[in-house]
Amino acid sequence: MSGDPADQTSGEEAMIARYFRPLARDPGAFGLLDDAATLTPPPGCDVVLTTDAIVGGVHFFPDDPPDTIARKALRVNLSDLAAKGAKPAGFLLSLALPKTVGEKWLGAFARGLGADAEAYGCPLLGGDSVRTSGPVTISIAAFGLVPSGAMLRRSGGHPGDRVVVSGTIGDAALGLLLRRDPETAQRWQLDRPEHDHLIERYLVPQPRNAIAELLRRHASAAMDVSDGLAGDLGKLCAASGVGADIEVARVPLSQPAQRAIAASPALVETALTGGDDYEIIATVPATALGSLIAEAGAAGVALTEIGTIREQQGSVRFLDRTGHSLMFKELAFSHF
Amino acid sequence: MSGDPADQTSGEEAMIARYFRPLARDPGAFGLLDDAATLTPPPGCDVVLTTDAIVGGVHFFPDDPPDTIARKALRVNLSDLAAKGAKPAGFLLSLALPKTVGEKWLGAFARGLGADAEAYGCPLLGGDSVRTSGPVTISIAAFGLVPSGAMLRRSGGHPGDRVVVSGTIGDAALGLLLRRDPETAQRWQLDRPEHDHLIERYLVPQPRNAIAELLRRHASAAMDVSDGLAGDLGKLCAASGVGADIEVARVPLSQPAQRAIAASPALVETALTGGDDYEIIATVPATALGSLIAEAGAAGVALTEIGTIREQQGSVRFLDRTGHSLMFKELAFSHF
Repeated sequence: MSGDPADQTSGEEAMIARYFRPLARDPGAFGLLDDAATLTPPPGCDVVLTTDAIVGGVHFFPDDPPDTIARKALRVNLSDLAAKGAKPAGFLLSLALPKTVGEKWLGAFARGLGADAEAYGCPLLGGDSVRTSGPVTISIAAFGLVPSGAMLRRSGGHPGDRVVVSGTIGDAALGLLLRRDPETAQRWQLDRPEHDHLIERYLVPQPRNAIAELLRRHASAAMDVSDGLAGDLGKLCAASGVGADIEVARVPLSQPAQRAIAASPALVETALTGGDDYEIIATVPATALGSLIAEAGAAGVALTEIGTIREQQGSVRFLDRTGHSLMFKELAFSHF
Repeated sequence: MSGDPADQTSGEEAMIARYFRPLARDPGAFGLLDDAATLTPPPGCDVVLTTDAIVGGVHFFPDDPPDTIARKALRVNLSDLAAKGAKPAGFLLSLALPKTVGEKWLGAFARGLGADAEAYGCPLLGGDSVRTSGPVTISIAAFGLVPSGAMLRRSGGHPGDRVVVSGTIGDAALGLLLRRDPETAQRWQLDRPEHDHLIERYLVPQPRNAIAELLRRHASAAMDVSDGLAGDLGKLCAASGVGADIEVARVPLSQPAQRAIAASPALVETALTGGDDYEIIATVPATALGSLIAEAGAAGVALTEIGTIREQQGSVRFLDRTGHSLMFKELAFSHF
């Protein structure tokens, strides 16, 4: 992490030395003491490259715990690597900080970042820190490895493939509503643990890196669900030149999400189109479905079959129990 | 470039399609239609990774021409690759935009970015765009290639090595002063072309990628000068565990910089400690000096010998014609 611009005795250099150098133990990071890092992919591997930024007041609340902000910043990138079937190899951190950010915030931020870098085997390789008059802005570029040519694409879905999704859908979008208005929990008749579960799902995504290799072996196409299931499935289908029929009743919902939707049925649209799930949606040939679900389960990740890929390009339908197609007011969540 | 979060028909997706997809012609970019890109290094190569961010109101003026902002954002990263002896291979763009940025700005930004990506052989591979309540913030992660283990480091300088610097020093720091107060040009007795030259050097760095391979072959250590010659040489010497004696009279200055310093001698400190040069400082064994300077000249980059590496760690001296060491008020430029 080179200071930009800052001198060798500045607060910035001290900050890097104190908080971030301990995270940069990979030999390719050169202890954050050079201008750049190196990554040496094993022979026959492609480097998978992804970048996602999160901004205070847009993707997180400025008063969220700094360790969860760091985890979210890294995990939204890890989620992309997982969906592409790539094994994490490291990341670069670009940090724009307002003057109001102090040592305590940075210490907690670095601790959260370091814990996740360790847990996911994705070391800090380098970075940059700059001053901003705006909100905290964290941009991470993350790198993964796949056998050459084997990155799992959005574009490989075929008619007849089954559609699966990991974990549960809609929790983060409901958690965001709770975060904005805590009284909502009462209307939804949630108890404290249920409330906390949804909030936690908004604060800290659970990227599915545990099944990255399984997906690469079995799935025909995949992406991570970050902008809502409906919209993201639409993107996958567009890239694959296919359509899809999804049975809404099969979409996996957590207990708290089920309770909220029971209390306020319109929330099903929030669950299906809201952002920040960071689950994986994949298409799988029918013959591979059983193996994938079983092996993912053994790796600790629930995969649920929710529908089928169809030939009709552009037709992505969410069907209720009577076979009628749901109409959404907005296909996907957008900050723009 | 995946929208984050945005739907497939949003303004953001349209913006990406219109302005950035045309830049992403590298096969590894997948037309910006996937979650990630791939880079396939040739066998026996390391990937060199670097990231630098620039922020409106900090690293550029919000009313700078958008094409120069884009060029600066990419070139500060290209400059790091050059200093490490790496051949550019591509980059990821992370763009945080306030609502005030419109189509015209984006069009000019993308044109500047595309022109430089083409000129430097560094294609756009992917990215992310997000909304911010703060200033335009552009974070780029750039990737280069070197033979395995051959990245040029800061840490290879040896006593007796010569110190060379590319181009001219101080122009950008003087250009920034002119940009802040145009009347300064009169005090410095600059004519219009001289004024414009310094302004241009602030707006658009000239990264020295043309000599990256030469540096890797001949130099013992190198870094790019982004935070001021004095401070950055200090960092290189610290990493190498050496000292240096620099003859100030040999530091290459442009004609406009010479004129400004003649009119206001204290500006020599601005030139030697100011930021944004994006030149390269390198240490070179004496036996390789002639070849390096000659071959760099043939590649269109002037390299000037300015001093010698000494054993005394921590002693980086800038000597005047009488052999006295200059004292600087601030060793390097810092926004922090």
